[in-house]
Amino acid sequence: MTHVSERSGAGSSQTGAGGDRQPWTTGTGSPVRRRAASYLDAGVSIEAGDRAVELLKSKVKQTRRPEVMGDLGGFAGLFRLDTKKYRNPILASSTDGVGTKLVIAQQLDIHDTVGIDLVAMVVDDLVACGAEPLFLLDYIATGEVVPDKVAEIGAGIADGCRYAGCALLGGETAEHPGVLRPDEYDISATGVGVVEESEILSSERVEVGDVVIAMRASGLHSNGFSLVRHVLLGAGRMRLDVVIEDFGRQRTLGEELLTPTKIYAQDCLKLIAEAEVRVFAHVTGGGIPGNLVRVLPEHVDAVVNRSTWKPQPIFDLVQSKGRIEAPEMEATFNMGVGMFAVVSAEDADRALATLTGRGVDAWQAGEIVEGTGNVQLVGQHTRG
Amino acid sequence: MTHVSERSGAGSSQTGAGGDRQPWTTGTGSPVRRRAASYLDAGVSIEAGDRAVELLKSKVKQTRRPEVMGDLGGFAGLFRLDTKKYRNPILASSTDGVGTKLVIAQQLDIHDTVGIDLVAMVVDDLVACGAEPLFLLDYIATGEVVPDKVAEIGAGIADGCRYAGCALLGGETAEHPGVLRPDEYDISATGVGVVEESEILSSERVEVGDVVIAMRASGLHSNGFSLVRHVLLGAGRMRLDVVIEDFGRQRTLGEELLTPTKIYAQDCLKLIAEAEVRVFAHVTGGGIPGNLVRVLPEHVDAVVNRSTWKPQPIFDLVQSKGRIEAPEMEATFNMGVGMFAVVSAEDADRALATLTGRGVDAWQAGEIVEGTGNVQLVGQHTRG
Repeated sequence: MTHVSERSGAGSSQTGAGGDRQPWTTGTGSPVRRRAASYLDAGVSIEAGDRAVELLKSKVKQTRRPEVMGDLGGFAGLFRLDTKKYRNPILASSTDGVGTKLVIAQQLDIHDTVGIDLVAMVVDDLVACGAEPLFLLDYIATGEVVPDKVAEIGAGIADGCRYAGCALLGGETAEHPGVLRPDEYDISATGVGVVEESEILSSERVEVGDVVIAMRASGLHSNGFSLVRHVLLGAGRMRLDVVIEDFGRQRTLGEELLTPTKIYAQDCLKLIAEAEVRVFAHVTGGGIPGNLVRVLPEHVDAVVNRSTWKPQPIFDLVQSKGRIEAPEMEATFNMGVGMFAVVSAEDADRALATLTGRGVDAWQAGEIVEGTGNVQLVGQHTRG
Repeated sequence: MTHVSERSGAGSSQTGAGGDRQPWTTGTGSPVRRRAASYLDAGVSIEAGDRAVELLKSKVKQTRRPEVMGDLGGFAGLFRLDTKKYRNPILASSTDGVGTKLVIAQQLDIHDTVGIDLVAMVVDDLVACGAEPLFLLDYIATGEVVPDKVAEIGAGIADGCRYAGCALLGGETAEHPGVLRPDEYDISATGVGVVEESEILSSERVEVGDVVIAMRASGLHSNGFSLVRHVLLGAGRMRLDVVIEDFGRQRTLGEELLTPTKIYAQDCLKLIAEAEVRVFAHVTGGGIPGNLVRVLPEHVDAVVNRSTWKPQPIFDLVQSKGRIEAPEMEATFNMGVGMFAVVSAEDADRALATLTGRGVDAWQAGEIVEGTGNVQLVGQHTRG
C-alpha cells in the first residue's frame, strides 16, 4: 500500500496554494517536485484538466465552513472551535465504512454516490448524540489510484459533507497494489462533532409517554449488502440492469441498490432546536430493534407499530427472493426507517411539522411505555 | 464488507457495560441479542476468554484520559474538551494508514506492533502543528475477522495511543470477504488534537539563524515499504528470517523491517514547553527534503548536513541491493531521522538536553539560512 496522498486543510480557501511553493533541492543541485500536501495534489490534481478534478475542487470548496483554517500547519487539518457557543463543549467522534455496497458501485462503475453513504454512516451517529457535525476526514484504499475515480469518490464525500453541513477537512488515499485489485476500493471516514454537555442526548432523558417518530429511509441505506448481494445477485441470479418497480417509478435494480443513504443530520439538528428531543436512534446494522434498544433506559419499552408504514418494495424483494424470516429481516435491514426520534408527547405534532416542512417523510410510529428496556415491534406493515 | 463492530466510548470505564442490557424482543416474542456498541463487543469479546482479548481490554483501559466520557451517547465516542486550558482552541485532525509494512506483519504473523506504526503516522502529524493529541479512532478492514488477530492489532493501536498520551476513543472493524483474503487486513486511523491558536507552529515562525535538530528514527518507520519489499524480498530474494547486523545487534531482517515507528508526540510536546520551537517536520513519505520543505517560509533555506549522522544499516542494505540513487533514497526514506525540530539558536542546547534527557537520540543537524524556501542536503553521511 503505497502512500499516495495526504490531504489536509481541504476545506480551506488556500487549498492547492502549496503547489506554487519552491521545489526543494538535494545536495546534487537537482530540483525535485515538492511533495504534495493538500487534498487536490498528488494522485489527483497532478492529472489536472479533467472535469472530474474540477468537479471535486468545487465540491470540496462547497463544504468549507468559516472555522476551517488555512494550510498553516500543513501536516494536519485545522478547525477553530467556537467556544463562545459552548460552556462545556463535548467532542463526539465516530468512524465508519460503507460495507459491500461498494461492490455494487464498482460493478456499476458509478463512484460519485458512495461518498454520500459514507458521510451518512458517520455524521448521523454524531447527531444521534445531539452533536453538530463539524468536520470529516476520509480514507480511500484502492488497488490502483485512477485520478478520475478517486475524484469521483471524493466528490461524493464532499456532497455528503455539504448535505450534513460539515467541512471535508482532509483525508488520505492509499494505493494497495497486489492486495486490492486495480478496480477495487474501500472507503472509511471519521467525523468530529460538538455538543454542549448538558444537551447530550442519552437514554436517561427518555420517559414513559414519549412519542417515537420515524423518518423514512431512502432505501436499503448502507447495511445488509452482503446478504442482499447473496440473495439477489448470487442465488437469485438477478442482473443489476433489470428494471424493477418502486412505488410506480421504473428503475433498474442497480439504481435501487445504489440509492444514496439519506443524511438526517441537518434535520435532526433542526428538530433539537424546535422540539424536546429525548434521543435519536440511527438505524444501521442491527436494524430497528437493534438500534432503538440502545437508547432505552431499563424501565421502559419502546412500542413500534409496523402498521404505521410500508417498507419500500426492495425489502419485499430481498425477503421473498431469499425466503428470509421476518425477524432476520428486521435485525439486518432498516425496513424503511433510517432514523428515529423520541420526543416528548406534547412536542410530537411540532416535531412532525418541523420534519415535514423540511421534506422529511416522518410519522408517529410508536410510543414509550413502562417496560424493561426492550423494543416491541407490533402489528403488520401495510401492504396497500 | 460486512459491518462487524462499531466501537465507541472505548476508553471509558463503562466499556462493555452495555453487554449487560436487556435483549430486545420482536413482535414474535423471541428475544434477540442486543447489538454490541462498545469496543470489545461483537466480533471480539463475544469470543471472550482468550488472552488476546483480555490483553486488549487492559490495553485500551490504559489509554483512558479523564476527558473520555462514559457510554452515554452510544453512537459516538465522547470527549470533554478542557476549555479552561485554551482561549482559542484549534482542533487539529489527521488521517493516515501504515502502507505495505502491513504485508511484512502478515508474512511474519506478528500483528501487535503495526498499530504502533499507525498511531505514529497520525499523532506525529498532529504534534507537528503544535497540537496535543487528544484521541484517536481506528478502522480495521479484513478478509475475515479472527478475534485473536483483531485483538492483537487493537492492542498495538492501544499501545501507540498510550505512548502518545491520547485516548483510543473508538473504531470500526469491517469484514471484506471476497475482497481481502482472510489473512489480509488494512488499518487506518484518525487522530484529533488541540492547540491554542497563537501557538500553532507554522513556517511563519522560522527565522534565519534557527537551528535544525534531528531526532533519530527507530528504522524505516512506515514509508517506502513497496520499494523495500521489491528490492529485498522480490528482486533481492532475501528471506525475512535471515540474520542481519544492526549496530552490533544480531536480528532477523523481519525484525528489522517490522521495528515499530518511533512516536515523538510526548517528546515534542515537552520540547514546546521547554524551548522556543519554531516548527516540527514529521519525516514520512517524501523523506527529509520533501517534509522539511513544507515548513520553510520562502525567504529561507534549511541546510541539513548529512555528516552529522549515520543512517542505520538497513538503509545501506536497501540502497545497495536495489542500486538506488541517493536522491531517490532521500526522497523515499527517512534515512534515520524521523522528526526535525527547528528551534531558536539560543534554545538549541536546552532543546537537545530536553530530548536527550527523555532518551531521544537528538543532535544538531543543520541551520536555517537566507534562501528561497529550499532544503539543501550537504555533506556525506559518516561511514564509521
